[in-house]
Amino acid sequence: MRVLVWNEYRHEKEKPDVAEIYPDGIHGAIAGFLQSEQVEVKTATLDEEEHGLTEEILMKTDVLLWWGHVAHEEVHDEIVTRVHKRVLEGMGLIVLHSGHFSKIFKQLMGTTCDLKWRVADEKERLWVVDSSHPIVEGIGEYIELEKEEMYGEHFDIPTPDQLLFISWFEGGEVFRSGCTYQRGKGKIFYFRPGHETYPTYHNPQIQRVIKNAVEWVKPEVNNKSVYGKAEPLETISIKR
Amino acid sequence: MRVLVWNEYRHEKEKPDVAEIYPDGIHGAIAGFLQSEQVEVKTATLDEEEHGLTEEILMKTDVLLWWGHVAHEEVHDEIVTRVHKRVLEGMGLIVLHSGHFSKIFKQLMGTTCDLKWRVADEKERLWVVDSSHPIVEGIGEYIELEKEEMYGEHFDIPTPDQLLFISWFEGGEVFRSGCTYQRGKGKIFYFRPGHETYPTYHNPQIQRVIKNAVEWVKPEVNNKSVYGKAEPLETISIKR
Amino acid sequence: MRVLVWNEYRHEKEKPDVAEIYPDGIHGAIAGFLQSEQVEVKTATLDEEEHGLTEEILMKTDVLLWWGHVAHEEVHDEIVTRVHKRVLEGMGLIVLHSGHFSKIFKQLMGTTCDLKWRVADEKERLWVVDSSHPIVEGIGEYIELEKEEMYGEHFDIPTPDQLLFISWFEGGEVFRSGCTYQRGKGKIFYFRPGHETYPTYHNPQIQRVIKNAVEWVKPEVNNKSVYGKAEPLETISIKR
Amino acid sequence: MRVLVWNEYRHEKEKPDVAEIYPDGIHGAIAGFLQSEQVEVKTATLDEEEHGLTEEILMKTDVLLWWGHVAHEEVHDEIVTRVHKRVLEGMGLIVLHSGHFSKIFKQLMGTTCDLKWRVADEKERLWVVDSSHPIVEGIGEYIELEKEEMYGEHFDIPTPDQLLFISWFEGGEVFRSGCTYQRGKGKIFYFRPGHETYPTYHNPQIQRVIKNAVEWVKPEVNNKSVYGKAEPLETISIKR
Repeated sequence: MRVLVWNEYRHEKEKPDVAEIYPDGIHGAIAGFLQSEQVEVKTATLDEEEHGLTEEILMKTDVLLWWGHVAHEEVHDEIVTRVHKRVLEGMGLIVLHSGHFSKIFKQLMGTTCDLKWRVADEKERLWVVDSSHPIVEGIGEYIELEKEEMYGEHFDIPTPDQLLFISWFEGGEVFRSGCTYQRGKGKIFYFRPGHETYPTYHNPQIQRVIKNAVEWVKPEVNNKSVYGKAEPLETISIKR
Repeated sequence: MRVLVWNEYRHEKEKPDVAEIYPDGIHGAIAGFLQSEQVEVKTATLDEEEHGLTEEILMKTDVLLWWGHVAHEEVHDEIVTRVHKRVLEGMGLIVLHSGHFSKIFKQLMGTTCDLKWRVADEKERLWVVDSSHPIVEGIGEYIELEKEEMYGEHFDIPTPDQLLFISWFEGGEVFRSGCTYQRGKGKIFYFRPGHETYPTYHNPQIQRVIKNAVEWVKPEVNNKSVYGKAEPLETISIKR
Repeated sequence: MRVLVWNEYRHEKEKPDVAEIYPDGIHGAIAGFLQSEQVEVKTATLDEEEHGLTEEILMKTDVLLWWGHVAHEEVHDEIVTRVHKRVLEGMGLIVLHSGHFSKIFKQLMGTTCDLKWRVADEKERLWVVDSSHPIVEGIGEYIELEKEEMYGEHFDIPTPDQLLFISWFEGGEVFRSGCTYQRGKGKIFYFRPGHETYPTYHNPQIQRVIKNAVEWVKPEVNNKSVYGKAEPLETISIKR
Repeated sequence: MRVLVWNEYRHEKEKPDVAEIYPDGIHGAIAGFLQSEQVEVKTATLDEEEHGLTEEILMKTDVLLWWGHVAHEEVHDEIVTRVHKRVLEGMGLIVLHSGHFSKIFKQLMGTTCDLKWRVADEKERLWVVDSSHPIVEGIGEYIELEKEEMYGEHFDIPTPDQLLFISWFEGGEVFRSGCTYQRGKGKIFYFRPGHETYPTYHNPQIQRVIKNAVEWVKPEVNNKSVYGKAEPLETISIKR
């Protein structure tokens, strides 16, 4: 399996407090825990040529992870179209945290993907609401994060195919924090936590969910769909 | 209620056989049977200024119907963005037949919306699979159309919120012909039949479904959603 | 419209603190705010003959509300079968609070309907997650209840057709508090709040939701479904 | 993996034409093609003690397949309750053909599971509507069966979690022929074809679907859910 971790990679270069938590970038941290004998992990970032998302690279990618925040608008539309096409063809996609506002997520969802938010060092508790789903394997009843950004409802998304996590926030809000979708042949998982000023991606349970999700969104079935003009399979009567 | 019937309006001007079936255009035929004391119906077509879809007109539209086929690419992107925004705000949308490939439907669905097709004067039978849904009120077990274009699976759409009709075609195919979706606050209904060379929109059962659908997709609830930065509702403990 | 409010009616007779909050029973309180010129409301309770749910009464009921808690097992199986049949025929059903464990709800869901709970005078905030649904009309972003029983995930139900409310609890849990289902021709709404020791059914927003839900679950469409042996609609070729 | 194929096993003993097609019973035919090095397959039938479904046997079963037709009523309620409990705990269940009317399927669905039918040696074509689902791996666009019983809509089931096949019948009907559900921790697959007078279970594509389905419904995740009274995770303020 070939996994590509894409990161905007701006906060880490501009904010020392973020760089301290993620010295190799958020992509580096995620690539670090995903790497294994079975999984080949590469990374790509916004400021690389074609954002590191050439046709060739995407054709060799089974699962793409996406973290972006302040520079969604800098992602070129034709690259978004390219990624979109690959997802519909079957490439798995995991959209992380502020990636909810990325062009690729909005294009796949068809909605604004807007939400409420607040950065206030508050506690988040992600409750598992579908305990038999492979993405939550090894997670108990919930994940507790001592400090995270709050995302609150209403979250303007289509009804998820499967709702896996609902977050409780200390400040009084709730959020649909783990959502799966299928679009074309591609599986998509949106996972809420991961604000850049908190060490969320160093949390073993968060890592476990992301590892599970990589396995779950990866393309497994290789049936070809047929489209366009089609000859009849049965005789059609002549009508006058 | 204010309804706007949008039509590409090209076939009717260029093909005499189509003009014979729809002398006032497909939009004219549809507007004709939708008009009532309770419903104010207007029409708009591709070749009008801004395709007849100005901000002002859309703000006064509760339900938009969309028929297009050969000129999807001529619809300006900024107009599509404008319609998209209105749907997410709550305007109902009914997408008819070849409108499956319109920019607005693809943008709302996030998929290719591709399918199989054939024009062979064949019989279509649309089976009701949810007999208690308001959109099928007054329709019996099925609608039979003596001659229609075939659309066949696979239809590349997200799983519908509700599947109301499945079509049987004489040539051997099936199709998910009546699909509802919610995107943002807007309700959407896709309805398959309506090829321009057949008198489908003169069929009383087809008219009944479209009338029912106009009632069903219309915006009913006026709750405002709140997005953006939010103050906490509960006291957040100070963590070190 | 004819509405029937069913209540176990035991706590009110046995516990003075409950009787003080609901002197006419929970059914009386609910019937009181549902009654209007358009809606004829009756009540029925467990200790009446046939639990007040005769064939004749059920045939004249468009919407049934159900509150039960300590005596689920005393409801006779044949009465449950009778109510079940009516729901599948189209009667709307609103299941309230501890009704999650009623025989009728479990039979319709096919699951255990188990959950976590605690009575600790804690705050509940019910967040609206589908702001354009008729059931939440007139409700803002959330409903706040100063004191309620806690119900926490995991809630063992089939995935709701529509998820309308998610509750936040002061003690740290979340819950899917407003869920719609269709079973047969019947619409079902499960609504979480309503512990007998709190004045929840006197809360105007809770009353609003229940009034809206009565309108939403009521049967609207009277299409007959056809089952059993069927003659072919097309000629079947003879095969050897 | 331990698979148990349950069959009513009456037609094969009473009708020579059925016995000719399935000399070892339908259960024998299915067990035959499911057996492999990775899969241990056993069978059980109605007339065995406890229908061959003792507590001990069920505890050792990962996936249960169910074929029944004329003797649904002879299945004891307590055995149904036992199977139901195991499904909710995570045992996979595949319900075949006329099993749509079995007590276990009706209990899991909560609806009548009624449908239209006809035995007329007609052609069935099962169209794949979700080509990336593991259950349809290796199946092309459709499966064609020269002769089968017809099942027609309306099929009175809850909306499937995933709809995988839609059947086209020569006589003019359609049917939702491949449906997945989750109930509790158990995955369920309903698969339509398999009338006893046709050699459907000898068809390699049908066998492929059932093999795929066994893999798909099998329990994979072993998270425990917690229910009942729960201590608060956060401090609850004292209210007066």
